Amino acid sequence: MSKQKLTLIHGVSIITVDPEERVYLNGAIAIDGDRISAIGQSGSLLSEYGSRADEVVNLEGHWILPGLINTHVHTSQQLGRGIADDVDLLTWLHERIWPYESNMSEEDSYISTLLCGIELIHSGVTCFAEAGGQHVSAMAKAVEELGIRACLARSTMDTGEGLPAVWAQETTDTCIKIQEDLFTRFNGSADDRIRIWFGLRQILNATDNLLIRTNEAAARCNTGIHMHVAEIPYENKFVSQSRGVEHGTVTYLKKIGLLNHNLLAAHSVWVSPSEVEMMGQAGVKVSHCPAAAMRMLGFAPVTEMLSAGVCVSLGTDGAPSNNRMSLVDEMYLASLINKGKVVFDRGTTDPTALPAETVLKMATINGAKTVLQSHLIGSLEVGKKADLIVVNPDKWTMLPLHDPISNVVYCMRTENIASVMCNGQWIMRDHKIQTIDEEAVIAKSKEAAAKLLTRARIQLPARGNVIH
Amino acid sequence: MSKQKLTLIHGVSIITVDPEERVYLNGAIAIDGDRISAIGQSGSLLSEYGSRADEVVNLEGHWILPGLINTHVHTSQQLGRGIADDVDLLTWLHERIWPYESNMSEEDSYISTLLCGIELIHSGVTCFAEAGGQHVSAMAKAVEELGIRACLARSTMDTGEGLPAVWAQETTDTCIKIQEDLFTRFNGSADDRIRIWFGLRQILNATDNLLIRTNEAAARCNTGIHMHVAEIPYENKFVSQSRGVEHGTVTYLKKIGLLNHNLLAAHSVWVSPSEVEMMGQAGVKVSHCPAAAMRMLGFAPVTEMLSAGVCVSLGTDGAPSNNRMSLVDEMYLASLINKGKVVFDRGTTDPTALPAETVLKMATINGAKTVLQSHLIGSLEVGKKADLIVVNPDKWTMLPLHDPISNVVYCMRTENIASVMCNGQWIMRDHKIQTIDEEAVIAKSKEAAAKLLTRARIQLPARGNVIH
Repeated sequence: MSKQKLTLIHGVSIITVDPEERVYLNGAIAIDGDRISAIGQSGSLLSEYGSRADEVVNLEGHWILPGLINTHVHTSQQLGRGIADDVDLLTWLHERIWPYESNMSEEDSYISTLLCGIELIHSGVTCFAEAGGQHVSAMAKAVEELGIRACLARSTMDTGEGLPAVWAQETTDTCIKIQEDLFTRFNGSADDRIRIWFGLRQILNATDNLLIRTNEAAARCNTGIHMHVAEIPYENKFVSQSRGVEHGTVTYLKKIGLLNHNLLAAHSVWVSPSEVEMMGQAGVKVSHCPAAAMRMLGFAPVTEMLSAGVCVSLGTDGAPSNNRMSLVDEMYLASLINKGKVVFDRGTTDPTALPAETVLKMATINGAKTVLQSHLIGSLEVGKKADLIVVNPDKWTMLPLHDPISNVVYCMRTENIASVMCNGQWIMRDHKIQTIDEEAVIAKSKEAAAKLLTRARIQLPARGNVIH
Repeated sequence: MSKQKLTLIHGVSIITVDPEERVYLNGAIAIDGDRISAIGQSGSLLSEYGSRADEVVNLEGHWILPGLINTHVHTSQQLGRGIADDVDLLTWLHERIWPYESNMSEEDSYISTLLCGIELIHSGVTCFAEAGGQHVSAMAKAVEELGIRACLARSTMDTGEGLPAVWAQETTDTCIKIQEDLFTRFNGSADDRIRIWFGLRQILNATDNLLIRTNEAAARCNTGIHMHVAEIPYENKFVSQSRGVEHGTVTYLKKIGLLNHNLLAAHSVWVSPSEVEMMGQAGVKVSHCPAAAMRMLGFAPVTEMLSAGVCVSLGTDGAPSNNRMSLVDEMYLASLINKGKVVFDRGTTDPTALPAETVLKMATINGAKTVLQSHLIGSLEVGKKADLIVVNPDKWTMLPLHDPISNVVYCMRTENIASVMCNGQWIMRDHKIQTIDEEAVIAKSKEAAAKLLTRARIQLPARGNVIH
């Protein structure tokens, strides 16, 4: 008999998101250590596991779903929430984000990731893909403590106009070397909850040498590459002119062999129909970030990508781009904006586009595929890791429950997420995070955020007539 | 000395939304009965009112804002949340909403308004404009009990294809008579919290006679008219063809004299630039419902309307159109979609469009103008009604607080709204509604909703492979 802890949760509805799309109305799930060992009808699992389980939990009236997966988030930017609202893109980047990030210490990054992690966990996220921060070791420390799962990447740039001095000196060699060292040090750590990916900030900040060597290094390590792709029209124009390809970044990435199944292309807003086809054929993963899209970038052709077989998942982006870091809200937004955006092509919306079940897949199993771990997470199936969330739908936020999966996507709010399990461990229970001291992190965050802004000399104009 | 209760709240930040846009960082507010009697620095109000107030509340660390105003909501549709998701507009209307509404009893409407009211109050709403329900007396009873403020209207139609039999027989005379009676009976009731407006469902369901007589009756009663306007392109086409005007509904309403300061035009999505000008000149009020716009209708030219001097406020629409009934979320969405939508005109978004302070005005003072009560509500000023909300920003949802007004619009969630006062009465305190029994309403709602769907013969297709 295994010495691992055996937990039985019964009396619940389970939305499995498995290949058969099974939904148990009165189901149970058995968890042996970090793995799911059984899923089925509540009665039969109770008789099989009830007496020998170490913990038997009756969660009547609740739903269990796979943990949500946030495939594009800048955890280091959490301390900068609100520093760059309602400003144009150049002000956003040069006067706010770069000064903020380039003045960030290892300790700031650690605190920022903890604060972001609190919001992610409350929002039902059990795994995230970091978009690229400055201090990967600090992020890894925070992730280890939070108990969450993550693919961490370093913000990597070896060229670009107007970069802060501290970044401008980094050579291509250094970029690769640092990341290989991080891979050796942290990949597979924290009970394999942490994976190290290679980062590419964006094509405007990467020489061809960096692009190609990143691709080779990621292949050697058998890991993924996280890159911002086709974010703004100027990016495509720049690529077309400087690299002599017809459309833009995606076309060029294909040309140099970077368009592969292990590329996580964040945003991918400005892609042509033929580039959508290229992405589908190559097995590229796209992280669609609805709030950041509306606010800053534009509307990606998500329905077209899904039709072309592209794996599209959901991300929140970073706090200064969103500013809610809630995948629950992104599900709601993803459905809304993709129903609405065709109005500009055909004169009417398409209320049937991106139905609730599709959006739920994007937030779960497509997220798992995006982080290259769909054999381990993204659905509730026997043998997979026990990454799950417990939803209490019996509140004014979600009632009545005529169409449960629809209510998860359109009505659920963070208030409804009661408990979160990652890798077989309860990391939140009854709305209380179990792994870290939330109040202590919040206190530290406020102090660190204020100091960082002073150091970075970021001053925000006042709104309204402030009386001290 | 007045016998009314005197309350002093101190130690708080106050975002007044007054004409000077004053924000007190360490402020206080004195409430005498149902009115605000003083606002100012905490120290000076404490010495003036501290000893003689009946209740002195220290809310250090909290913010006070005007109560939010939801200017377009179908409270009767709350029991139908989830009955019409991911379906086309005709299915939505003919197979779901009309059967639902036409089978609704007086009691259903009462329960539905109570359930909706719970969500509105938790979302910081102190006043709403009902878009038009079937049982105004039931809605009035619920509003009286909830302690909230409302402009109630009856769903009114005297023509239209495919209407349920129970509605099809109503004559123009009956339509006007019923509403005049409701006005006599309920206008000014519940300590003047309830106002009765005239309803027009939409121009496809109104004869010219009904339009003109509604306008006359509303003028006689000195009240407003709530009407769905320019929702879909077909509506304008129909109006152009049947009524011989150039563009559509707005142009026709102007022609027949209905385009006035007391018209609350919900949605107003499909309006031409010249119609926007007409609306601005006429002082028409527009309720912009961002979620419903994205999902179903299309994107109203909100920035253009604001530039033309149109008073634009925010609404949630009804539960089967949204499905979150949260003005907090609509603030977030309003800013996002209006930053994003220009991408289709100019190829890039405008992240500076609809800045946070503008959106906050839309949800407060513009809402007050929309419901024709800006002399009473919509901002925190001496002499106005004490309609306010208490926000606790000190949570993972909103931190850090570099840019407070921005955080209210972009980060705040319903979790942050701790207490709500309407008409000088605490209707929610520390997240608990004071006026009604929330759990009892929820229990009744579940039962009533299930029975109503059976009676209306609404059956929803299952999502996924459901195992009972």
